[in-house]
Amino acid sequence: MSLAESSITRFLAEHTLNRQFGEEEFSRLGAFVKLSLIDTTGVAVAARDEPLVQSLLNSHSANARNEGAALFGGGPKFDVMTAALINGSMAHALDYDDTLPWFQGHPSVVLWGAILPLAQNLGCTGKQAMEAYLVGLEVGCLLSQYMGNEHYAAGWHGTATIGRNAATAACCRLLSLTTEQTVNALGISGTNSAGFKTSFGTMCKPFHSGSAARGGVEAALMAQAGFTGSSEVFESKLGMKGLMAGVGSNSVGLAYLSHHPVEKLVFKYHAACHCTHAPIDIIMASSGTHGFRADDITDIKVHCSQISMDAAGNPDPKTGLDAKFSIAYAMSSALVKNDTGIANFTDDQVDDPDVRALMSRVSVDVDETLEGLRTTCAITLRSGETYTDTQDPNERTVPIDEQTAKLVGKFTSALKSLMTADQMQALREAIEGFDCLDNVNGFMAATELQ
Amino acid sequence: MSLAESSITRFLAEHTLNRQFGEEEFSRLGAFVKLSLIDTTGVAVAARDEPLVQSLLNSHSANARNEGAALFGGGPKFDVMTAALINGSMAHALDYDDTLPWFQGHPSVVLWGAILPLAQNLGCTGKQAMEAYLVGLEVGCLLSQYMGNEHYAAGWHGTATIGRNAATAACCRLLSLTTEQTVNALGISGTNSAGFKTSFGTMCKPFHSGSAARGGVEAALMAQAGFTGSSEVFESKLGMKGLMAGVGSNSVGLAYLSHHPVEKLVFKYHAACHCTHAPIDIIMASSGTHGFRADDITDIKVHCSQISMDAAGNPDPKTGLDAKFSIAYAMSSALVKNDTGIANFTDDQVDDPDVRALMSRVSVDVDETLEGLRTTCAITLRSGETYTDTQDPNERTVPIDEQTAKLVGKFTSALKSLMTADQMQALREAIEGFDCLDNVNGFMAATELQ
Repeated sequence: MSLAESSITRFLAEHTLNRQFGEEEFSRLGAFVKLSLIDTTGVAVAARDEPLVQSLLNSHSANARNEGAALFGGGPKFDVMTAALINGSMAHALDYDDTLPWFQGHPSVVLWGAILPLAQNLGCTGKQAMEAYLVGLEVGCLLSQYMGNEHYAAGWHGTATIGRNAATAACCRLLSLTTEQTVNALGISGTNSAGFKTSFGTMCKPFHSGSAARGGVEAALMAQAGFTGSSEVFESKLGMKGLMAGVGSNSVGLAYLSHHPVEKLVFKYHAACHCTHAPIDIIMASSGTHGFRADDITDIKVHCSQISMDAAGNPDPKTGLDAKFSIAYAMSSALVKNDTGIANFTDDQVDDPDVRALMSRVSVDVDETLEGLRTTCAITLRSGETYTDTQDPNERTVPIDEQTAKLVGKFTSALKSLMTADQMQALREAIEGFDCLDNVNGFMAATELQ
Repeated sequence: MSLAESSITRFLAEHTLNRQFGEEEFSRLGAFVKLSLIDTTGVAVAARDEPLVQSLLNSHSANARNEGAALFGGGPKFDVMTAALINGSMAHALDYDDTLPWFQGHPSVVLWGAILPLAQNLGCTGKQAMEAYLVGLEVGCLLSQYMGNEHYAAGWHGTATIGRNAATAACCRLLSLTTEQTVNALGISGTNSAGFKTSFGTMCKPFHSGSAARGGVEAALMAQAGFTGSSEVFESKLGMKGLMAGVGSNSVGLAYLSHHPVEKLVFKYHAACHCTHAPIDIIMASSGTHGFRADDITDIKVHCSQISMDAAGNPDPKTGLDAKFSIAYAMSSALVKNDTGIANFTDDQVDDPDVRALMSRVSVDVDETLEGLRTTCAITLRSGETYTDTQDPNERTVPIDEQTAKLVGKFTSALKSLMTADQMQALREAIEGFDCLDNVNGFMAATELQ
């Protein structure tokens, strides 16, 4: 069945419920699902004390309780919806989590944000949670393909919009809803899809992720309780495609999924907006090869896509969060500090004079021939030499063993000041055996900070 | 100051906090605020047992408690945000609540949905709640003017989108936030503005209202707790105006408010979508004047605007909720039953054979020269006579005394099977003295059903 043969909303609902994973397929894809869980858990727990998490805890304290769904890092428990909001926001707080171009955003923070609290509440097994993740990811990619990349390019934050409906699918799967209930759930989440890219650099970007996770849980629970929504929320002319810059394909279907989107997850090794990664990689590689330092540079000309400019064109960030969306800051601080980790993007780093000095010699312009994250940098030295390179962080494929080693290193680096080695080991073991867990409570307990 | 002299987001934040009401002005406008409260309370309490309210109570039962914010009609209490969600949805469940073209939607259900729970929680006086209502209404009208009517015409449900930000302003006012906090609150609610008109006829239309009310409370409380959002969420090219079909004015300001939007509230006396009101009024007036009955009619040709067609063009409603968005059903059932109240729009009425027989002779088409709710009907009888009339329910102005009498009648009709005469009297007195209340708890208690 292809999208053209059925209404997209019903098609996605049927895929949500009917998708089956053979043993071999689950084993292969499950390894990637665990990678997403290692990564999401590390960056979420590392963000436990971020101001935006504290702000959410304070503003939503009325729903804190002793029993209920746990947060990454422990602390008070919450009802499932509020836990999804806070976990989904926390996991995206550092903007250091995985992305997937096919999803037009950050899939894992939204999906795990929604799945883990609901799975705790329902007593689902680890394997059921992993299957819900895979189903949510596939539904998100299908919806993203249906909308087309113009949706994100226009200014919608796909993590919030695509993500909300993907989370809904994952939750409907966990709840074993009927097709009609799942259609209604997508109707509920579809009509509540929101999130502007103009929020990048503010706490609302992580809030988009948390709000999407909560929205997925809420839509599924409402539909289970008999709430109705449009059965054509995506394809109606007054629906998501008609209103939210959707110009994607109408005629594609499940064949697309034979590519297995989970195998295409892109993990971040710099703690900033993905649009800053090519410039960072170019300056670090060039410096490594040619041995220059910040003082040797007279100017850097960056050319990027309109998408990267919209997301990360900020020439003068005021806060650490803001700095994650500044190509000029990210590449300058990478070279000056020889580091691109979490500590580089804090409020007290953003005015570092050495970084500012190099930033003043960076220009960033749009080159209409560049798409997505592809970026060109020309670095000119006092000696007169110019080094030019073009990179696209989405084009690198890394073997899973190498990826695992890198992610364990990132996980350890993110958590080493917060957990003992034994705690980190126990948490890693809980993830490694996640598919065999009778329920996810023990996993959430293993994330607790003391 | 006009919108052109300041960024719209900051301008609206400043208006939210700085708007002052002199004694005489408050007395005059307050009379209209009380009309909105009579009307909202009546249609909300009458909807207490609607399936969609039960569904929300079930899906959100995790946050029910003995103490907290009360619902219209009583029952369990909730945290402020969940109470806003349920009250805001309940008040719009019957689609029988007031509208305001300047607001592009239904202002009172969203505003009271947000204000009453927060005012209970904060211990605000009735007068403070009424001022918050006026401020929220004004901010909604200013934002609506900034976006332009194209926003609604394109397919966005203004009650959800404009309404969310109006509710945010009302809540910021109740919380006495700073300007910076209010800018952040609008940044939070702006980027979460959502709601498609394709949801009309499903439970999601009332959910839009409740979700907007909750979103306003949440944004204000988050901003109070230090959460940040874009300071240009409305005017940024990647913000609300850029992404949500905003093509309205840039150069207008407070002069607009000298018209006092609260005085322009349009109250409904038929329990269906406002776009069905002109056809209902025409058929009832024509029947009254010319003495014909349903069987005498050979055909009815309705011509309406594209907006009315999108909202209420459904020729074959399946449920009572659906039937509220069907011009053919609404005008046919009005004539056949000689009634346009709540009882006409229930699931067991929707297939009435006499109504269906008349509906089969109704055609509804778009006339590009008609705008808004303006509608033409040509009713042709077996005798060969044709009666044609054009009406616009937004163009009628009714003196406040007459409006009050009509609203008290509607209130009494809606609640008479649910409350004793003494209870209704006590509730009306609580509304009449609302501006003198030390807090709103007693008012909410007076809405309780036994």
